Amino acid sequence: MKHELDNSGLGHIETHYYTFGDKPGEELLLESGQVLAPVTIAYETYGQLNADKSNAIMIEHTLTHDAHAAGFRGDETRPGWWHDMIGPGKAFDTDKYFMICSNVIGGCKGSTGPSSINPKTGKPYGLDFPVITVKDMIEAQRRLLDHLGIDKLLSSSGGSMGGMQALQWVASYPERIRSTIPIATAWKQSAQQLAFAEVGRQAIMKDPNWNNGHYYDGPGPVQGLSVARMLGHITYMSEISMEDKFSRKLKKGELSYSFDIDFEVESYLHYHGNNFIKRFDANSYLYITRALNYFDVSGEKLIPANLKIDTKFLVISFLSDWLYPSWQSQEIVRYLESRNIDTVYFEIPSTYGHDAFLLEFVEETKIIKDFLKKVEHTKD
Amino acid sequence: MKHELDNSGLGHIETHYYTFGDKPGEELLLESGQVLAPVTIAYETYGQLNADKSNAIMIEHTLTHDAHAAGFRGDETRPGWWHDMIGPGKAFDTDKYFMICSNVIGGCKGSTGPSSINPKTGKPYGLDFPVITVKDMIEAQRRLLDHLGIDKLLSSSGGSMGGMQALQWVASYPERIRSTIPIATAWKQSAQQLAFAEVGRQAIMKDPNWNNGHYYDGPGPVQGLSVARMLGHITYMSEISMEDKFSRKLKKGELSYSFDIDFEVESYLHYHGNNFIKRFDANSYLYITRALNYFDVSGEKLIPANLKIDTKFLVISFLSDWLYPSWQSQEIVRYLESRNIDTVYFEIPSTYGHDAFLLEFVEETKIIKDFLKKVEHTKD
Repeated sequence: MKHELDNSGLGHIETHYYTFGDKPGEELLLESGQVLAPVTIAYETYGQLNADKSNAIMIEHTLTHDAHAAGFRGDETRPGWWHDMIGPGKAFDTDKYFMICSNVIGGCKGSTGPSSINPKTGKPYGLDFPVITVKDMIEAQRRLLDHLGIDKLLSSSGGSMGGMQALQWVASYPERIRSTIPIATAWKQSAQQLAFAEVGRQAIMKDPNWNNGHYYDGPGPVQGLSVARMLGHITYMSEISMEDKFSRKLKKGELSYSFDIDFEVESYLHYHGNNFIKRFDANSYLYITRALNYFDVSGEKLIPANLKIDTKFLVISFLSDWLYPSWQSQEIVRYLESRNIDTVYFEIPSTYGHDAFLLEFVEETKIIKDFLKKVEHTKD
Repeated sequence: MKHELDNSGLGHIETHYYTFGDKPGEELLLESGQVLAPVTIAYETYGQLNADKSNAIMIEHTLTHDAHAAGFRGDETRPGWWHDMIGPGKAFDTDKYFMICSNVIGGCKGSTGPSSINPKTGKPYGLDFPVITVKDMIEAQRRLLDHLGIDKLLSSSGGSMGGMQALQWVASYPERIRSTIPIATAWKQSAQQLAFAEVGRQAIMKDPNWNNGHYYDGPGPVQGLSVARMLGHITYMSEISMEDKFSRKLKKGELSYSFDIDFEVESYLHYHGNNFIKRFDANSYLYITRALNYFDVSGEKLIPANLKIDTKFLVISFLSDWLYPSWQSQEIVRYLESRNIDTVYFEIPSTYGHDAFLLEFVEETKIIKDFLKKVEHTKD
């Protein structure tokens, strides 16, 4: 089967790479005070940049996604992670807009991260990679934007950590972004979110094969990483969607009276744990979850007291999302309203939990299309 | 400091042991078809058994608790796990009732479990211990009850897994129990509960020191067990109680830009993880969570279609308990009402999450006292 048909309207999909920081003075200065150089950013684009470069939208990914947001590369059998949202006539309409999606620094999908070669040693960084923040991720993206010759974004959007990046754009460069669409996210993590992240990290770091982060010549902490992923999966689904999908269904029709897989939900978790370790680097999991923990653009950290900004907000949350519950979106909305910022808020009554931002594309599309049309037609 | 004062009214507290199954024909036949013998049950009692032996209440413990439910043994500095509920004038009033609390089989606090010596090998059972169920736990308790010469319980009560045992008494021996008080529990686990249990078990079983369950001459899977416990702790608290207690408070006032403990909630999880591994056996964690998974007394498995029973029910759930949410208690209550069983149901509006059954003793006391008074005065 040829997938070119599935790319209809998207054209040829390819991951590009931009490297900077090779020359003195061009390094990436991090929030921690450390310096990262060189820095490679893996990115993809969909649609065409218009003549006055006013139609660019930054698509921001989650903890475990990457630059490949839409379409099929080569003979891939699965499209990019937000394929339902990016393309001709879709929420992020490639007939009108130019979408950019880049892999975060600290990641393991082409951008510089802990599994990249440390130029000082000629070996993978491991734990010598500096701790990065969401602000640092956006700083790297800003360099990419400069490289692409784009002065101002029409919008930025993403779910979960993607939503944090969408917010960080406003906190870092309000003059360079006309609107933002944070989805299923928070302006800072709650104690429960910090706690889940720490359990995932401990599962990895307590795996003896983690070896203090230097495992790239061995098997690596694949057992710990799979446990972290299994836990993650529970938090991405709602209680009701898990119940609808699995309830107490048995894999083999009867109980084994053992610790083998008896229930379908166990099988599902194992499947996803085992798949994840093939495609994701455990150290990246540590670094990116740490960036999530450190993220905090609450209150005046989002918009300083005396700053007047024109950026418009569309905030979306989902009723059954208990990992990033609606109250966290509403906290942002309340602040924006107190600052007289042009804000639209929707809580979509989904049962899919946190995963809803990937699945409720029909609802999201209606809301986002209307919002972007409004932003487009507002004089800058 | 002498703790005898704290035992006021409870008298001397001591753990007793009852062993059975030494003789042929007296073994414990398990639901799996396997046989367990000999079986030791660790138990404590509080209050006095009356002359006609009609005032006995079975107190049932959770996954990680034990037979020591109230008072201080010797120079202990912390009382039993339900001390607030058991004693003179308390919910389970030792001036009126005789409470029995026994450690479940499969456990590691004095009753026979995977860390006990296998008489066939002279070594700890490890994974040669048979998989046990909640029904098996109650079967062992029934033997203890016979040993104590008690024909009929006034009641049985406990939270979480304790509530399952309270329900199992009715399913197994409706004629031997006048009432039951299941708290913060379910008549079968949901997919999400099955999933959390599996992640905890995988954290243990993927620890190389688990060694397929045979670790009693080594350090054991303490790393995996601590991860399982950290995860458990998140599920025992509500989102709001975690937020109230920790929010994003920093341990040392500033971010470390490392993977050290930065947030107080991380420190809390580590503390509880580290404590747990000193007091609990990893294999018991596996066996008991498996029993929870297998538990299912839904519908006619609780009360067969043609059976008429006199057992009265008091079902209690807590508003913020997301591990055993109220809908699971309401499912039981709806069925009991359809069967015309004398049932009282309360949802206590607590913010403490699943832990509420240990903390909301003031509310619980009022409700339970009234209920037990009613049961007492009902002609048998």
